[in-house]
This record gives sequence, C-alpha cells and structure tokens, in this order.
Amino acid sequence: MPDATVRRLSAYLRQLEHLAAAGIAQVSSRQLSEYIRVGAAQVRRDLALFGQFGQPGRGYVVVNLIDHLRRILGTQQTWRVVLVGAGQLGHALLRYPGFAGRGFELVAAVDCDHRKAGKRVGGVAIRPLEDLEEIIRHTDARIAILTVPAAAAQDLANRLVEAGIEGILNFATPVLEVPQGVHMAHVDITAHLEQLSFRLVSNNIA
Amino acid sequence: MPDATVRRLSAYLRQLEHLAAAGIAQVSSRQLSEYIRVGAAQVRRDLALFGQFGQPGRGYVVVNLIDHLRRILGTQQTWRVVLVGAGQLGHALLRYPGFAGRGFELVAAVDCDHRKAGKRVGGVAIRPLEDLEEIIRHTDARIAILTVPAAAAQDLANRLVEAGIEGILNFATPVLEVPQGVHMAHVDITAHLEQLSFRLVSNNIA
Repeated sequence: MPDATVRRLSAYLRQLEHLAAAGIAQVSSRQLSEYIRVGAAQVRRDLALFGQFGQPGRGYVVVNLIDHLRRILGTQQTWRVVLVGAGQLGHALLRYPGFAGRGFELVAAVDCDHRKAGKRVGGVAIRPLEDLEEIIRHTDARIAILTVPAAAAQDLANRLVEAGIEGILNFATPVLEVPQGVHMAHVDITAHLEQLSFRLVSNNIA
Repeated sequence: MPDATVRRLSAYLRQLEHLAAAGIAQVSSRQLSEYIRVGAAQVRRDLALFGQFGQPGRGYVVVNLIDHLRRILGTQQTWRVVLVGAGQLGHALLRYPGFAGRGFELVAAVDCDHRKAGKRVGGVAIRPLEDLEEIIRHTDARIAILTVPAAAAQDLANRLVEAGIEGILNFATPVLEVPQGVHMAHVDITAHLEQLSFRLVSNNIA
C-alpha cells in the first residue's frame, strides 16, 4: 500500500477523533471528504480496501470507523517510542500532547549532553546516550524518533537498527540509509513548505 | 496535481541537493528511485510531467534537474515566512538550518508572551502578537507557520488569512478551517508514527 494511502487513513482518523470528541456519532463519506479535501469516491475507495464499514445512505458510525482505522494502522495497541536527541525539537516532542491516547508513548529520551541527564521533561527522563541500547532492551521499544544534528544521524540510526529498532521517525536528515526491513518516515519541514509554494505559484499560473 | 506527487518532487529535490553537495553531476532515474524507494518508472513519469529533462542512457544532469524542480516548486525565489508561536517548537524552527538556500526565509516571529518580545533566536526577532498584521504588511510575507496551542489556532489562522497570508504550515491542530484559495499543509507527527506502526503490523501479517 502506498504511503499516500496510509497518510489519508491518518487524516480520516484525525478528523474522526475530532468528531467523536464533539459528540458526533455518524458521518458520511462526503462529509469526511470535505474535511480532508479529497474526493468522496476516494474516501469510499480507501475505506473499502479494508472491508465494508459504511451503510448506504447512513454513512459510517464514527466510533466503529475509529476502531477499524486504529486496527489497520496498528495503533489499537500502544507502541513504546524512544527519543534520540533532547534538543529544542526533542523537548517540544516530549511535551507534545498529541501522542496520548493515539497509540504512542515516549518511554525514554537520550542525549549526548551529560548535563541533561536526569532531567525530566513532559514526565520522561532524559538519560545519557550510552544507555541507548539498554533502554531499548528494557522497554522493548520498536520505534525511535531521531532529532539529532544531521552529522550524527547515520551513526545513531545504525546503533538503533543494531539494537533492534524497526521503525525510525527521522527529523534529522533527508539522507539516511537503513537496511531493508527497517522502516523510516522522514519529517521534511521544507517539503511541507514546498507544498505551499507549489500551490501559490500554481495559483498564479491558473 | 495530487499532494503525493508534489511530495515526491520534494524528495527528489532533497536527494539531488545531497548529490550536488557530494559533487555528483549525473544521476539516472533508477539511482534516484533507489534513494527514494519508489519505482524508476514512477520517477520518470513524475519528471516527464514537466517536460523532457533526461537523456536516454545518460540520465539527468543534477544541477539542471535541481533548477527545474525549484522552478516547478516555486522555490527559485525566496518566500518570506512569518512564524506564529515562539514556544519550544517555534524556537527549534527558528534555528532550523534546513531552510537556508531552499527558498524560505523566516523573517519574523510573534508570540503572545510579552516576556519573549525583543529576544532574537536564530537571527530572527520575536515580537509581540499585536504586531502580526503590521509585520505581514511590512514584510510582504505570504506564508505563515503556525506553532501555537490547538485552542488558539483557529483564531490566529483567521487573523493570518485576514492579513493576507495565502499559505499556512500548520503544526497546531488537525482541524483548522481556512477559506478556499488559502492553502494549508498540516504537519501531523502522529501520522508519521502511524506510517511506521502500519508498516510494522503489515510486516507481521506478511
């Protein structure tokens, strides 16, 4: 399945979580498509990939669809996540309220700066980088978030893979090599800005 | 053009910038596809959308392709960007080295906390929120980055649109309404983690 499809499933889930919090029980594919700005047919096609959830003319039961999407995305369970690099971005992530209840728990952070060791941020202890392998072993974390300077990223990614990490959320560098079988998602903030600049110049042309 | 295509163009551009920095002059679509982990046919199809850049059997001239992609993405010019919210994430963005030379310049930051006003972070002055409209007028910024608590996001988005901002990079909340014609890109960190959890559970099934 293409990344783009998985990304749309996340977008549906975010919107559904919002509807559920607002006490809304049913939603049509058309409504869902308007929130997300994709076609209603695309929504139905995406959701049909995983079975028949909607009822013709009545749409989807919000809590059921949330449940299905979480099962598809693998977040009906909670993943323990290790943060590598407790700089400013790392701190922001440790305090980020959006993980709770969505299947991800930051269980530890490491940083090469020993002065940070022992500090607690957002309820999570920062520990020295040397403890990385032991932390992964102890917590059974399978996912890591990498927020270190670009120059340190490849070495640390290698250590993470060596220690058994299977998925890396990479904020550090556009160019990171991981072996087949290890998954990587790259948060490229410049690329998000390029989405906007592309739309703005397309506007001008149109 | 779908967001997913624009996202791939950004990924090609990141890889090409890396190759250029390493002194590599030519690249084939197959090489490019391996770096990005998409099919070579997809790469050729994406690049053919915008004209004939490659030479059969020789591939692409790296600097030319960079130039073409920047023109397509609208980043051969520099976009002035205003940051709204100078919290920990905001600070990290002000110090982010990845914008320079890629067509985006953070020209100002605003924050509702007056104690931050006057501080300089990453060479950018933090100013009081009240100055927002004046800053946008003065700098001609068309893009804003929103890194405020979710509860404040919609009001501030409204102000940005009212002040003439045409593109919002939204870190704040999954649910933000902007009028047609205003473009929004949402950085959903949970969605990036869901990409990983999806792949990990798919691994288990396969």
